[in-house]
Amino acid sequence: MTGHEGGAAEAGRLMRAEIAEQPEVWARLLARSGPVAEAVERIRAAQPRFVTFIARGTSDHAATYGRYAADVLCGLPGGSWSPSTTTLYGARPDLRGSLAIGVSQSGGSPDLAASLAAAREGGALTLAITNDPASALAQAAELQLDLAAGPELAVAATKSFTAELITLAQLFLGLAGRAEPGLERLPEWGSAVLRDPRVTDGIAAAVERFDGDRVVLTGRGYASAIASEGALKLMETCYVSAAGFSAADLLHGPIAVLDPAVQALAFTSEGPAGAAMRPVLERIRSSGAPLLTVGAAQRMEGEAWLPLPAGVPELLEPVLQILPIQLLALSLARSRGLDPDVPRGLLKVTETR
Amino acid sequence: MTGHEGGAAEAGRLMRAEIAEQPEVWARLLARSGPVAEAVERIRAAQPRFVTFIARGTSDHAATYGRYAADVLCGLPGGSWSPSTTTLYGARPDLRGSLAIGVSQSGGSPDLAASLAAAREGGALTLAITNDPASALAQAAELQLDLAAGPELAVAATKSFTAELITLAQLFLGLAGRAEPGLERLPEWGSAVLRDPRVTDGIAAAVERFDGDRVVLTGRGYASAIASEGALKLMETCYVSAAGFSAADLLHGPIAVLDPAVQALAFTSEGPAGAAMRPVLERIRSSGAPLLTVGAAQRMEGEAWLPLPAGVPELLEPVLQILPIQLLALSLARSRGLDPDVPRGLLKVTETR
Repeated sequence: MTGHEGGAAEAGRLMRAEIAEQPEVWARLLARSGPVAEAVERIRAAQPRFVTFIARGTSDHAATYGRYAADVLCGLPGGSWSPSTTTLYGARPDLRGSLAIGVSQSGGSPDLAASLAAAREGGALTLAITNDPASALAQAAELQLDLAAGPELAVAATKSFTAELITLAQLFLGLAGRAEPGLERLPEWGSAVLRDPRVTDGIAAAVERFDGDRVVLTGRGYASAIASEGALKLMETCYVSAAGFSAADLLHGPIAVLDPAVQALAFTSEGPAGAAMRPVLERIRSSGAPLLTVGAAQRMEGEAWLPLPAGVPELLEPVLQILPIQLLALSLARSRGLDPDVPRGLLKVTETR
Repeated sequence: MTGHEGGAAEAGRLMRAEIAEQPEVWARLLARSGPVAEAVERIRAAQPRFVTFIARGTSDHAATYGRYAADVLCGLPGGSWSPSTTTLYGARPDLRGSLAIGVSQSGGSPDLAASLAAAREGGALTLAITNDPASALAQAAELQLDLAAGPELAVAATKSFTAELITLAQLFLGLAGRAEPGLERLPEWGSAVLRDPRVTDGIAAAVERFDGDRVVLTGRGYASAIASEGALKLMETCYVSAAGFSAADLLHGPIAVLDPAVQALAFTSEGPAGAAMRPVLERIRSSGAPLLTVGAAQRMEGEAWLPLPAGVPELLEPVLQILPIQLLALSLARSRGLDPDVPRGLLKVTETR
């Protein structure tokens, strides 16, 4: 772990570099459409009736996004598989006629590889999406998509997450036979977000204001996955209690938590999910919780806002929505004297069984 | 809402009564095996290849349990469907050859009924599990299982949740062609837990000690769902920031949050999941977070522990594991001057779209 070397090094330098690298990683990924086209062809030939995701942590949030995209774009119902049904209880589900997708940066956790192998034995067509084509997960699968994000050294995953989102978007767009011209614009949009002084100044102001240790994040549709991933980033780098909810689930209970001592963070967008967020934003405002919105619009006068580019389709918005939260987690951690590259209690590759 | 009437009424009296009523509700449910057997027969005839759950809030935690049971007991892969793919984006997944199960206490949220109707149009065999056979959700389904829990008046769901768990256990045991004699013992076990002075005194002591507003709950296997449901109970009645994680997911990031200022709560059991919890308990202890364990064993000398009966199969343990958390939420809310029957910002029937 290079993050451990040199105590005098700037805290969070690995995470900062990996956040900044993302537009370049995406451009590389988008230039390389061959492997996705090949996977699409193989999957189409298998005509899967449903898709099962096998993932944990950050990659499980990418899987949540993928499940949503499979449903909306392809009418392909999806689920996520708890590896423990196999590793603890020896479950051997009948997965004939299905697609199983393992998603993992390292591809190194034994339970994920074992589950994907069990899915293959159960008759599923298996696909591994990892940053390491030589990993156990990749070896267990019939099809592979390499994230090609380069080594990810910070414990808090950033570039591998957005590379997973883009790979999943490409995959399900391909299966749906749809083109999405917005994909090609992602590197440009991403660079704009990372450079936008309204974002960087807004984050500095948010860090200044934020003195508690409780955060609730929420989004609707594709952005639900980003609420969960944003919560994980804040938990693992800043040690705050952060929880992400789909806006609908928020209204089914957790909204009671909100009051002026809890920081609320909401993702907005220009589309059906963004429209469905409006009444939720009203409910959050009436709770008295300080609200930070992230998105193209819907700012109330005087309310904290981290803007994203206009004209981004909701399918692709999550790739951009997570950027300000990654930066926020980095800045908040540093302001609290923490090094987000080496969070307490965590290793880069978590081996669960 | 009777909870609003008579400001002088004891805070939480509805929730208290509904918690206490559970063993009786379970006995009634277990005495009535006909409807489950009929549903099992219809589902078997349809030979579903996968099962999709449609639920929100507390019922979604029951659905998580059901998905796990379907996988372990029947080798039937499962997923959960985000109603918003239908209500926001008009997704119409192809669900031929599948089973769709809507789970909801009230059966009254429009998005759930719309999603179950869409699942039926998409070719799924549909089953509604609700506490109101006249509800929109029940009407949208071909098959129904009535929880028969009696009116649930407290906003925080308790008896409907455990009734959902038992109904789902009965259903997947039936589909697996397995008998589980422990089922019949649940009312006796439940009464023992609710009467056990080690539980009631332990809760009083925990409430006394607990002065923060951050909680992390964790369990493995079937108990993962209880970690999530326990977190929701604490959020909606006590307004604390509580988050539930499968023990494996906990190690993939959120464990960094734990320190002496965060209350940890872990579910143990006598079986493979309980064994897999042991190293996780060690990790929690080494974080310095005060730990409260709930289960049949695995107590460290001097550590807070709410015991559950010995000899309970892990499949059924969740029905008992949630009881001490319901009581803890009730007591903690009351100790903070809150009325858990009428949490701020919530209504009994949440209508999301």
